Amino acid sequence: MPTPAVVLLSGGLDSATTAAIAAAEGFRVYALSIDYGQRHRFELESAKCVAAALEIAQHKIVKIDLAAFGGSALTDDIVVPQNRSDLQIAAGIPITYVPARNTVFLSLALGYAEVLGAADIFVGVNAVDYSGYPDCRPEFIAAFEKLSNLATKAAVEGAANYRIHTPLINRTKAEIIRRGTELGVDYGLTHTCYAPNEAGISCGRCDACHLRQKGFAEAGIVDPIPYQA
Amino acid sequence: MPTPAVVLLSGGLDSATTAAIAAAEGFRVYALSIDYGQRHRFELESAKCVAAALEIAQHKIVKIDLAAFGGSALTDDIVVPQNRSDLQIAAGIPITYVPARNTVFLSLALGYAEVLGAADIFVGVNAVDYSGYPDCRPEFIAAFEKLSNLATKAAVEGAANYRIHTPLINRTKAEIIRRGTELGVDYGLTHTCYAPNEAGISCGRCDACHLRQKGFAEAGIVDPIPYQA
Repeated sequence: MPTPAVVLLSGGLDSATTAAIAAAEGFRVYALSIDYGQRHRFELESAKCVAAALEIAQHKIVKIDLAAFGGSALTDDIVVPQNRSDLQIAAGIPITYVPARNTVFLSLALGYAEVLGAADIFVGVNAVDYSGYPDCRPEFIAAFEKLSNLATKAAVEGAANYRIHTPLINRTKAEIIRRGTELGVDYGLTHTCYAPNEAGISCGRCDACHLRQKGFAEAGIVDPIPYQA
Repeated sequence: MPTPAVVLLSGGLDSATTAAIAAAEGFRVYALSIDYGQRHRFELESAKCVAAALEIAQHKIVKIDLAAFGGSALTDDIVVPQNRSDLQIAAGIPITYVPARNTVFLSLALGYAEVLGAADIFVGVNAVDYSGYPDCRPEFIAAFEKLSNLATKAAVEGAANYRIHTPLINRTKAEIIRRGTELGVDYGLTHTCYAPNEAGISCGRCDACHLRQKGFAEAGIVDPIPYQA
């Protein structure tokens, strides 16, 4: 029986690659997606498609209303910035930051892991193309791993030693895309754009689209998704 | 303008006292309750009453389906233990433990605090009568405080130095009740029981009722709530 692992699956390129890596490392994948009041639903639809394409044990979608707090262009009625340069993207934490998002998501993954009897949690955070999100840095992940081993019944009783796996943390977007392509990830199922149109077609101009397109170009691989004209 | 603080408010005796202490320390209280799929609704109703009785700035209730994971008598169809002795209660982590509960709740409090521009979070955890929950211990709280100062935009930009306040952590239940009574907390509004009847009347036999009754007896104060015969 393979070792179980919880994988946070957003429906984006990074988390799809992370799930494929967890499976390639021999883990039995339990995918967890969070419905956190995103302004658009395409990301969660992509998560379902990615989960279906991988051979996983279970896919749970947990609903939580982070939009109740406000404060982010990803959950509020705030305009998503478009056509920003690499320098502008690198210059600071963007308005698309969702307060405490990875802390909340990893906490939920920890709860799910504990119920499953799993000690391994995979999350596709990235500190290279990380868009200034503080909760994508290695020191944050290390602090969460430490917390996990103090927080739970399984750890306190000695039944689990939690490990937070971040296989993408030091990879460029191009390296991620190359690795995922080797593992057979279908990037046509993934969703990256912060501001898709009503049909779910990516804008091609927001920071997320910009980083994705740059990554595919650098990898020398054709991005299979369509973009608005 | 008083300093804002987020207070996790469950509707129980401890969190009601914690909110009163935060207000007495001069903080402007933003209460946060979590609707986490509890089997009964009386706790959240009590949270609303407690919030209304205190002079607070705002009360948010965030819904999250922890029951989706299963694994606890507080969210699942598992029988709540009753008539256990002090020794039995002290002997281990009970089945009423909710996986990663305080990690999830504090993460949400952190998100709310960040949006508010607050750096102070109060939580009514208790390591004396703590019923064996690992996420009520001081080392867990210290680890969460450290995480908070790595996780957030406000901390990374130097705008906030998060502090997790646990004014009850080393207090006996009797001391908590005495302090709350001094501050005018109406314990008649609070709900403690894990297994109330359909009218919301406390059972008087579960671990939570047992600790509450013992606390009032030791404090020499009459518990204002009714119990089943």
